[in-house]
Amino acid sequence: MVTRLALDTVIKQALEEDIRQGDITSDILIDESADATAHISAKEDFILAGSLVAARVFEIIDPDIRIRTFFNDGDSVRSGDTIITLDGGLRNILAGERVALNFLARLCGIATMTRRYVEAVKGSGVKIYDTRKTTPNLRYMEKEAVIAGGGYNHRFGLYDGILIKDNHVKYCGGVAKAVFEAKKHRMNYVKIEVEVKSLAQVREAITAGADIIMLDNMPPDTVKEALAIVGGKAVTEVSGGVTMENVADYAKRSPDFISVGALTHSARAVDISLLIE
Amino acid sequence: MVTRLALDTVIKQALEEDIRQGDITSDILIDESADATAHISAKEDFILAGSLVAARVFEIIDPDIRIRTFFNDGDSVRSGDTIITLDGGLRNILAGERVALNFLARLCGIATMTRRYVEAVKGSGVKIYDTRKTTPNLRYMEKEAVIAGGGYNHRFGLYDGILIKDNHVKYCGGVAKAVFEAKKHRMNYVKIEVEVKSLAQVREAITAGADIIMLDNMPPDTVKEALAIVGGKAVTEVSGGVTMENVADYAKRSPDFISVGALTHSARAVDISLLIE
Amino acid sequence: MVTRLALDTVIKQALEEDIRQGDITSDILIDESADATAHISAKEDFILAGSLVAARVFEIIDPDIRIRTFFNDGDSVRSGDTIITLDGGLRNILAGERVALNFLARLCGIATMTRRYVEAVKGSGVKIYDTRKTTPNLRYMEKEAVIAGGGYNHRFGLYDGILIKDNHVKYCGGVAKAVFEAKKHRMNYVKIEVEVKSLAQVREAITAGADIIMLDNMPPDTVKEALAIVGGKAVTEVSGGVTMENVADYAKRSPDFISVGALTHSARAVDISLLIE
Amino acid sequence: MVTRLALDTVIKQALEEDIRQGDITSDILIDESADATAHISAKEDFILAGSLVAARVFEIIDPDIRIRTFFNDGDSVRSGDTIITLDGGLRNILAGERVALNFLARLCGIATMTRRYVEAVKGSGVKIYDTRKTTPNLRYMEKEAVIAGGGYNHRFGLYDGILIKDNHVKYCGGVAKAVFEAKKHRMNYVKIEVEVKSLAQVREAITAGADIIMLDNMPPDTVKEALAIVGGKAVTEVSGGVTMENVADYAKRSPDFISVGALTHSARAVDISLLIE
Amino acid sequence: MVTRLALDTVIKQALEEDIRQGDITSDILIDESADATAHISAKEDFILAGSLVAARVFEIIDPDIRIRTFFNDGDSVRSGDTIITLDGGLRNILAGERVALNFLARLCGIATMTRRYVEAVKGSGVKIYDTRKTTPNLRYMEKEAVIAGGGYNHRFGLYDGILIKDNHVKYCGGVAKAVFEAKKHRMNYVKIEVEVKSLAQVREAITAGADIIMLDNMPPDTVKEALAIVGGKAVTEVSGGVTMENVADYAKRSPDFISVGALTHSARAVDISLLIE
Amino acid sequence: MVTRLALDTVIKQALEEDIRQGDITSDILIDESADATAHISAKEDFILAGSLVAARVFEIIDPDIRIRTFFNDGDSVRSGDTIITLDGGLRNILAGERVALNFLARLCGIATMTRRYVEAVKGSGVKIYDTRKTTPNLRYMEKEAVIAGGGYNHRFGLYDGILIKDNHVKYCGGVAKAVFEAKKHRMNYVKIEVEVKSLAQVREAITAGADIIMLDNMPPDTVKEALAIVGGKAVTEVSGGVTMENVADYAKRSPDFISVGALTHSARAVDISLLIE
Repeated sequence: MVTRLALDTVIKQALEEDIRQGDITSDILIDESADATAHISAKEDFILAGSLVAARVFEIIDPDIRIRTFFNDGDSVRSGDTIITLDGGLRNILAGERVALNFLARLCGIATMTRRYVEAVKGSGVKIYDTRKTTPNLRYMEKEAVIAGGGYNHRFGLYDGILIKDNHVKYCGGVAKAVFEAKKHRMNYVKIEVEVKSLAQVREAITAGADIIMLDNMPPDTVKEALAIVGGKAVTEVSGGVTMENVADYAKRSPDFISVGALTHSARAVDISLLIE
Repeated sequence: MVTRLALDTVIKQALEEDIRQGDITSDILIDESADATAHISAKEDFILAGSLVAARVFEIIDPDIRIRTFFNDGDSVRSGDTIITLDGGLRNILAGERVALNFLARLCGIATMTRRYVEAVKGSGVKIYDTRKTTPNLRYMEKEAVIAGGGYNHRFGLYDGILIKDNHVKYCGGVAKAVFEAKKHRMNYVKIEVEVKSLAQVREAITAGADIIMLDNMPPDTVKEALAIVGGKAVTEVSGGVTMENVADYAKRSPDFISVGALTHSARAVDISLLIE
Repeated sequence: MVTRLALDTVIKQALEEDIRQGDITSDILIDESADATAHISAKEDFILAGSLVAARVFEIIDPDIRIRTFFNDGDSVRSGDTIITLDGGLRNILAGERVALNFLARLCGIATMTRRYVEAVKGSGVKIYDTRKTTPNLRYMEKEAVIAGGGYNHRFGLYDGILIKDNHVKYCGGVAKAVFEAKKHRMNYVKIEVEVKSLAQVREAITAGADIIMLDNMPPDTVKEALAIVGGKAVTEVSGGVTMENVADYAKRSPDFISVGALTHSARAVDISLLIE
Repeated sequence: MVTRLALDTVIKQALEEDIRQGDITSDILIDESADATAHISAKEDFILAGSLVAARVFEIIDPDIRIRTFFNDGDSVRSGDTIITLDGGLRNILAGERVALNFLARLCGIATMTRRYVEAVKGSGVKIYDTRKTTPNLRYMEKEAVIAGGGYNHRFGLYDGILIKDNHVKYCGGVAKAVFEAKKHRMNYVKIEVEVKSLAQVREAITAGADIIMLDNMPPDTVKEALAIVGGKAVTEVSGGVTMENVADYAKRSPDFISVGALTHSARAVDISLLIE
Repeated sequence: MVTRLALDTVIKQALEEDIRQGDITSDILIDESADATAHISAKEDFILAGSLVAARVFEIIDPDIRIRTFFNDGDSVRSGDTIITLDGGLRNILAGERVALNFLARLCGIATMTRRYVEAVKGSGVKIYDTRKTTPNLRYMEKEAVIAGGGYNHRFGLYDGILIKDNHVKYCGGVAKAVFEAKKHRMNYVKIEVEVKSLAQVREAITAGADIIMLDNMPPDTVKEALAIVGGKAVTEVSGGVTMENVADYAKRSPDFISVGALTHSARAVDISLLIE
Repeated sequence: MVTRLALDTVIKQALEEDIRQGDITSDILIDESADATAHISAKEDFILAGSLVAARVFEIIDPDIRIRTFFNDGDSVRSGDTIITLDGGLRNILAGERVALNFLARLCGIATMTRRYVEAVKGSGVKIYDTRKTTPNLRYMEKEAVIAGGGYNHRFGLYDGILIKDNHVKYCGGVAKAVFEAKKHRMNYVKIEVEVKSLAQVREAITAGADIIMLDNMPPDTVKEALAIVGGKAVTEVSGGVTMENVADYAKRSPDFISVGALTHSARAVDISLLIE
């Protein structure tokens, strides 16, 4: 989904950040013409994401490195599995190692946490969504990792969806006023989502004709009542305070989807290494 | 430590990522001339980092927003504390909200985890260091967050330190050969660090005259033996497999410092919100 | 709506394109310290757009130029009216002249053509929309000029709306199949628009549950039949082959909106000049 | 004439503007591995320009798309003619469609209007020139389109030619003073052009030794008198108020060239489509 | 002459090159709030150039540094003279020191060598010109330094002047053929210069109507003969093999100007220091 | 040592600086399809450096130009030797000529001067180092040229080495205080260098435990005394006032290395030409 142009910019900046005037260790220890085979391998079990990003790091450093991948994004990888094998100039392989692993470990971490949430709600028909709580400048990649994990993407930015949040509601003087105001405007082709914090606000949102209602920080039982009020007249999203412990509980209430900020802001990196033969 | 120029580039890209053609929600709901006061507040206890980054986000969006900060990086912030207060155009405040919070929550998360490690080794005189396992393109900021947490910075990239790792050792045919080779070269003003995995390699490193020895993935007892071998003839670093559970144990052995990748690759974001009055 | 950051990039590139190593004429003829007052004036009647872009050109060249504007975007300007008055360094005013006028003349042209279409459908309640047929790299500005003219904005890019066009329909094997496929996917918060070319396709689109139906290149009478089929079950857009001559005829059929590519791809520039006192 | 480096920058920005995080319609409807053949075809008669720009758009998106072109810039294309055929990944072809067509339609529009002016003065030996009234950031491309149409390029910016305009004349206190001043300066290798508005100014310009005289906004009969005064002692340019209706009339007076701002600021886009087989 | 936009880009890159993640020495030794007064002083006699560049370095690093300049570009500075005084944050002053001095020392070196050539031809009326043999990416600045030294600028690039060189002549089959071909083309407003290496070629150039003739690598006596052949029918330039030793000899022959590549490619840096009070 | 990414940025900017909208001479004189063989040849004796930079210039302009190189960086080239032969499109070869030669002549100049210094200290075991007195934005290339000449690289910027200079010493209140302060800080893996100007300061530096001592602007005899004081307890650098005349004298005293700013700030360009067959 991410275009190659956008991807390359991020990767080139990351390489520049790490390498700059050169890898002074390899420059003095590794012969310029030395070739090697290197394996990028899992050191724990996880869901793969970002394998194309990691491969692209090496393509950008040196188009002559031969890259073989053995899994697709979304696959379950076991500790010990080789994910990518590289053949080519050893200096260039080592120059890209850290950047490639930093991307990969982070993106796999996101996919893995997403998969755990998806598994936790399995059978409920409820979808797991991400948020805009992503790492600055890595949003596209991270949202792709969410998809690799089996999740879905919420809006990409302030520009591609109307989401009326608490601060907007406060400014407009209420949920109904805010939704009415939004509907008056020039956005025939965009759905209107509104964040609500109480059952009273749910009723306002329905009356005002919101397309999507975000039930913010409500306990599962309140969510149940809210969904009864909505009665299928709008798409429903549960958001705020969702954890691995309570997500199944929320899913039982059958909202359309549940969004989880932690997928992108708090996933831990998985353990991956690069070793030469 | 980060220069304003480098900082601004990262922030501008992040704003462009989130805002692009505009905040379509605020554009239709908030009057262009509306002013407001907004508070960025802690929703849990944590160590502050990145407060200047967050402030700079709003300065870049709109130099007329008045920004007041109430804590310094490194301070302990309590749940409920107001960290930053903003006065100015409401549209612009909301336009910067998500980007500012994404930086802040991540950097405070790093500082907070760092502080926990620092506390865990308190009294031992051992320093906690970061690694290059940082988020691509956010390395400078993240390393500043480590300092805010009481930690120290390892090298910033491949360019500013010689670190002979396992792959180099394998290529050179041993620790001693690698260190000798490095010493022959043109880097009078750079120390030579070498990663070792066994006591035999520790001995090689000392004999070859390494300046710093990284004891990689050794259990605390092996570390103790290794330090005895080193006997003060080199700076010593413990690295690999360090966790909150075992860090104090390592510290008791008194290496010079312990480096922890998790500080930057696996800290969870802290909970922070922005609310208008 | 356009953020200052995005705007500045476009303006700086345009200044660099025109000025590069310097204005060799003014450099030899105008004293570095010479000040002047200059007026940007209309040489024909038109609708104003882009006045902030023009002003920003001079701010970027020289923050010390004093800029006074006498109209807002969307205002009717008469031949002879002064739009902007500049006081400051003459060299810098002349350095920005051509770039500022090139933006302004083009954007006013778009607003003026938009206003003519809007006037032509006045009273019908039908909205005039733009398309993605904009000048490469000026899309945000041009879409703002459409709003200044009284029009509305269609999607900004491939990224912020689902529009199933003829090539998609052909690939998917029909309108219904394409819409069903789209609905299956992960875009709860995005409406689904589909382009149809026949009444049969209109029926398919309605059955499949499209949110918006674009009636492409249909004569006004066919549009009337299509709208009867839709019967309010979807938002309707007329597109293709719309001209000043037939737009009123289309509007009489009461689709929700009519989109006109010519607004941005074929408006002629208006005549504007800059003269020093 | 435009270098590939400059061209690529403009194209990449335009693709980023249109595609950003991805083509959400094609991403859900078109299989990643689907291939197709697509034809870019004329839907009216026009003069071709920008064919290499359009081809480059697809090369940049995907180097594996096979591109065949059937005409050269400057050729007359008939409605129905296929200009370019593309074979390759369907997603990538559709991702580039709008950007490629936006460039092509605009540049062909410029070439077509230029050709009409060139035809209108055929046999007179008078050349048709463009101006700096180009689209910001597309100047090089647009000036190439003028050449494709049979026209010639005036200066590219403030940096590559001395053109003393009315504001300079006013500041310097007259045409003669301005030209003398310019001749005193350090530009042995640049010709000096001056804009004049009256026969008295023509005489001044000749006496002062201007290399090129721009006869600004003079009726054809005044141009005739002006040319008599010049008597071959300078190159002559007619500029201002030139239209398709009066250009032949001006050409009869035999100035060296006539410059027409409308070529680049007011040409309408031609109608071109991309269809898959 | 250089625009502020172009200048800032070069300076920011240079600061990023030198500072990157920070000045690790000053960060640990200088208190963040320490203020100081620093003087940039001459340690030998030279002609000043680049003083605005040096000042701009500090403005970019820290707009709060107060900058006082005591000379203008083109002034003679004596060893011991203070050129610029800075008051402000000591860390920021030291952060900019090396970059500012590197620009300044180089540009003063160019101005100083230029002045020596200008002095050497004093009274002859012959102008000293630079060439395109400048430092990559510093051309504008270096050409300004030439002007500060009393010299003149030749063309800025391949884009703003026609200069037919030996390789063109060889390809076209002779000087006359090349000049005729150039005159046929679409460049009414650009003069045509041709490089000649023999008196026969001078004659060809004159016959063909070249505007400027570059006498390449001719001994002074041959230049004299060449000028006699030209007889005022073209502007004349002496180029190639000009040194401080022979420039006066060339000037005696009275060509219009003499161009010297060494001004920009081989001037040595002058000695300048920055000291805090 | 320089990565291809960093190199390409500098080269593309340099090409854009020189070519911009195109090479107007070659565009009118050279047929677009004309091919040629061109030789880049030495017109004097020198040490080669930058040959990969020069080759890369042509690769970037046109990947179809065939490039053959006949020497490696560091080789001695004789006047008349062909360094690089190019086969391909003549227009593109000429478009890159000046930029390639400007890089090459400058870098060979640096290598050649470095080699002269290295030869002058031959047999002494003393190394010749560069400084940060490089051309802004060309530092990496220039430091590679120093290596080609047989020299060594000092730190690359403020970020990769601690060098306590006179201004730091003054601020800290003495050499000892400054070194102690630096040692307290968080830089276990960086050596600490301090600049001293007197024998008293040498003693302070040794007592405080500096890793490297820069003997600044001392006459050879004082250097001798200083080295006696150091007595092998620190690495020693001679810096300041070193010339071709006195460098051997300094080398006789056997410091570890001598740094020479002139290598990069005052080397004259060598004479190189490009001629087509």
